[in-house]
Amino acid sequence: MQTENIDHIGIAVENLDEAIKFYTEKFGMRLVHRENLQERGLKIAFMAGNDEKTSLELMEPISHDDQNNTVAKFLKTKGQGMHHLAVKVEDIGKSLEELSSKGIVLIDKEPRKGARGHLVAFIHPKSSMGVLIELVQEKTN
Amino acid sequence: MQTENIDHIGIAVENLDEAIKFYTEKFGMRLVHRENLQERGLKIAFMAGNDEKTSLELMEPISHDDQNNTVAKFLKTKGQGMHHLAVKVEDIGKSLEELSSKGIVLIDKEPRKGARGHLVAFIHPKSSMGVLIELVQEKTN
Repeated sequence: MQTENIDHIGIAVENLDEAIKFYTEKFGMRLVHRENLQERGLKIAFMAGNDEKTSLELMEPISHDDQNNTVAKFLKTKGQGMHHLAVKVEDIGKSLEELSSKGIVLIDKEPRKGARGHLVAFIHPKSSMGVLIELVQEKTN
Repeated sequence: MQTENIDHIGIAVENLDEAIKFYTEKFGMRLVHRENLQERGLKIAFMAGNDEKTSLELMEPISHDDQNNTVAKFLKTKGQGMHHLAVKVEDIGKSLEELSSKGIVLIDKEPRKGARGHLVAFIHPKSSMGVLIELVQEKTN
């Protein structure tokens, strides 16, 4: 597979509004996109500098007590901080097949709908030197 | 201050050559730059996809036993994974002054020479919601 570019860095935060304010006021970033991912139990916001090709995805769990919410668990065990790295690919289905054939352990065997309507899939960090990597294929329509 | 773009994501690795091979063979990235930062005790490599505006900085300590090496300590306590987030700014000196005046705790009060000859400075993660943030001003000569 071919990485097009680094798409975003996912960051787990305790309070989304405070985090948006922090990156806006202190780092001069702007809010590019905001939505609630109900199926993942997350409130998210994408922040970028002048160039928005690579952004930050700030993520707060809708329920901080949800035992099945991976970001809520991450916050409880590790605290706020960088959570995942997302790379953009042209064909996510083909990329997953190729990674799997090379022995990479996939969390998502099939792409699913993620933030911004894009197709996404996660790779297990035990296969990628401790980094939780997300593949992103841009929505085209 | 104004973030121009996300410059890179620093990733602590146990073995730089294996990590370069991993991102090249599995993710189709290419090696953009490699150097040894003697004063920081690090071997580093920058990896990018087709677009190299935002890259990965893979970092392996030259001595894994050095108690003063922050990346060696990171590997011992947290294991391999994402270590810092670097944002590009136009004027690093002015940015540090502005952040300091807004109450942000700086690790480096003055910019210093970092990888690729760029000027860099780190901000304390306790001031930035758990993320170790590096400012980068591109070398101009």
